[in-house]
Amino acid sequence: MATDRIRDFIRTTRPDGPCLVVDLDVVRDNYRAFERALPDSRIFYAVKANPAPEVLKLLADMGSNFDTASVREIELAMEAGADATRISYGNTIKKERDIARAHALGVSLFAVDSHEEVEKIARAAPGARVFCRVLTSGEGAEWPLSRKFGCVPQMAVDVLVYAHQLGLTSYGVSFHVGSQMTNLDAWDAAIADSKYVFDKLARQGIVLEMVNMGGGFPTRYLKDVPSAEAYGQAIKGALIDHFGNQLPETIIEPGRGMVGNAGAIKAEVVLVSRKSDLGENRWVYLDIGKFGGLAETMDEAIRYPITTDRDADEMEPCIIAGPTCDSADVLYENTPYPLPISLTIGDEVLIGGTGAYTTTYASVAFNGFEPLRSYVI
Amino acid sequence: MATDRIRDFIRTTRPDGPCLVVDLDVVRDNYRAFERALPDSRIFYAVKANPAPEVLKLLADMGSNFDTASVREIELAMEAGADATRISYGNTIKKERDIARAHALGVSLFAVDSHEEVEKIARAAPGARVFCRVLTSGEGAEWPLSRKFGCVPQMAVDVLVYAHQLGLTSYGVSFHVGSQMTNLDAWDAAIADSKYVFDKLARQGIVLEMVNMGGGFPTRYLKDVPSAEAYGQAIKGALIDHFGNQLPETIIEPGRGMVGNAGAIKAEVVLVSRKSDLGENRWVYLDIGKFGGLAETMDEAIRYPITTDRDADEMEPCIIAGPTCDSADVLYENTPYPLPISLTIGDEVLIGGTGAYTTTYASVAFNGFEPLRSYVI
Repeated sequence: MATDRIRDFIRTTRPDGPCLVVDLDVVRDNYRAFERALPDSRIFYAVKANPAPEVLKLLADMGSNFDTASVREIELAMEAGADATRISYGNTIKKERDIARAHALGVSLFAVDSHEEVEKIARAAPGARVFCRVLTSGEGAEWPLSRKFGCVPQMAVDVLVYAHQLGLTSYGVSFHVGSQMTNLDAWDAAIADSKYVFDKLARQGIVLEMVNMGGGFPTRYLKDVPSAEAYGQAIKGALIDHFGNQLPETIIEPGRGMVGNAGAIKAEVVLVSRKSDLGENRWVYLDIGKFGGLAETMDEAIRYPITTDRDADEMEPCIIAGPTCDSADVLYENTPYPLPISLTIGDEVLIGGTGAYTTTYASVAFNGFEPLRSYVI
Repeated sequence: MATDRIRDFIRTTRPDGPCLVVDLDVVRDNYRAFERALPDSRIFYAVKANPAPEVLKLLADMGSNFDTASVREIELAMEAGADATRISYGNTIKKERDIARAHALGVSLFAVDSHEEVEKIARAAPGARVFCRVLTSGEGAEWPLSRKFGCVPQMAVDVLVYAHQLGLTSYGVSFHVGSQMTNLDAWDAAIADSKYVFDKLARQGIVLEMVNMGGGFPTRYLKDVPSAEAYGQAIKGALIDHFGNQLPETIIEPGRGMVGNAGAIKAEVVLVSRKSDLGENRWVYLDIGKFGGLAETMDEAIRYPITTDRDADEMEPCIIAGPTCDSADVLYENTPYPLPISLTIGDEVLIGGTGAYTTTYASVAFNGFEPLRSYVI
């Protein structure tokens, strides 16, 4: 999955230690694919997926808006050239002093899912626009969402009425179908819930304008995933089914889908060994693991494509683990991973599809290992 | 569980944002308790548990040795005043160039669990002492070890014979019963396995000297745990049972047991809300979560004691989650956590028993949140 540019960069610069290399050409292609697939939706890139300044700058130049999780992410988006009108503070859990800082920076679009959060925003960012997140089931997602964010649709009605009463602009509804969602029908139920909230509010004279359809657009790991076009068709169909002629303004928040397939991690085989002479699986230890950036292998949720220079050789399943003294730092064990039998200590491996949710998940210095370095080319 | 000194520090300095405060008096007491419990064992503090320079300095001054996982941890121990003879490179997964760097720094004690690692050490640190880690079952540990480290005892025999053949000093055997082990019998089986390896080697004329009994000594979270004295008695008994009059040199590697109860994290309630009006559990969102230092709440493995200023009020179970836009960032949900009904946004909470495995697990900048700050007093 690594592009030729990524392979060339690694071959010519020979960086020491594990590192992520991100190819901006792929990010550019992904942005255009989202634009084409959903031309009527505004794109808010989810900064948390990969906040590298070069990525943010490219997307800001292309006209992207930004979904942010903290004041620091707001600052990063603004440093990349986005003005505050292009920024959404999409975290439903915010300190009141952070809301005030965002407000001072000019941000005027905030996510909520509770009366308490509405009160904070009314105090710290008077007059701002708010959208309320509704709970979705998350079925079919590879990295399913818990019930952490959102509230039931009936409560979303109350929350948005309350926001209106406190002088805020009740602006819309948001949902998130779950990350890496490959079930195209998932959006339909959430869009139906959004329409329910729109209708309830309208009966009280409050006109909502926007449906924030969140992220969930998958990147290709080992399995094929539907194209951006297919998502676009499914989403457009669902919007028309439920909203008819009165289509709301829509927002999408791709993160993984924008940068996941744009990056590859270069890693090194530190050890290949067995635990006994009984012919059990080999253990292959890499110089990167769960605490160095591959946190999303938790419960073996995401199975990254791993390539080596020996892939023409015979393959054999093995257990893959990271370099730390932590016994939880095992990447693939329940479903062993086929790698060449000839793979040996010192070999380089490329872990594809790692442009999202790797550099920032990396721990500060667990076991004394430095965080994952990143090159954007 | 937070000491008066920790509470005073927080009250007087009022640090903004979540932070860990470590009380060196507790570390000092823990070190002395280990010395008293196992006066014949050398203590190798597991640096990865908490590599704060002040902690390392205190322990170096008290005479501790250091178990390290990387070259950076070796450097930290040396910067704290330990010379290389007091340092063990205890990671069984090492790059050959890191072994060479450790060798150049004077380190001469290395862990292995495979023939391949022995070959690296023979090349990069000729003449060094090696100990081979054997697999243990890990039953009874709250944070059980996988099969990532160690090999079966019969293979350990082969590995140590091979080390001897390559000119290394085959020095001993190590095991680790699993972190936070509260089953005092766990050491017995592992010591029996160690004796098996000693005997097999002796028959080939190779005299092992050392048993490295690893860590696993628990810290007190919510449940009571056996005292260091009780561990000492159980371990001494097992050593005498298996080794009789010819007791080997022994090493212990406490990490969590040395610093866990010395630290408390100050956090803030960011939001208290519900998902519907149906009277389900409250959600309490803190400004620290799984990616900010509380990674060991994974699968709710470790249940930290949480105290507030309202603990005299009526309690009610709630779900506790962190501040990031990641739905996996939930601390306690399967077994809801009782907190005061009166708990409110902006309240401070103290999370006890967090001196180990928190600051270093923290992510670099996930969601733009800075890593966990630490104060050592």
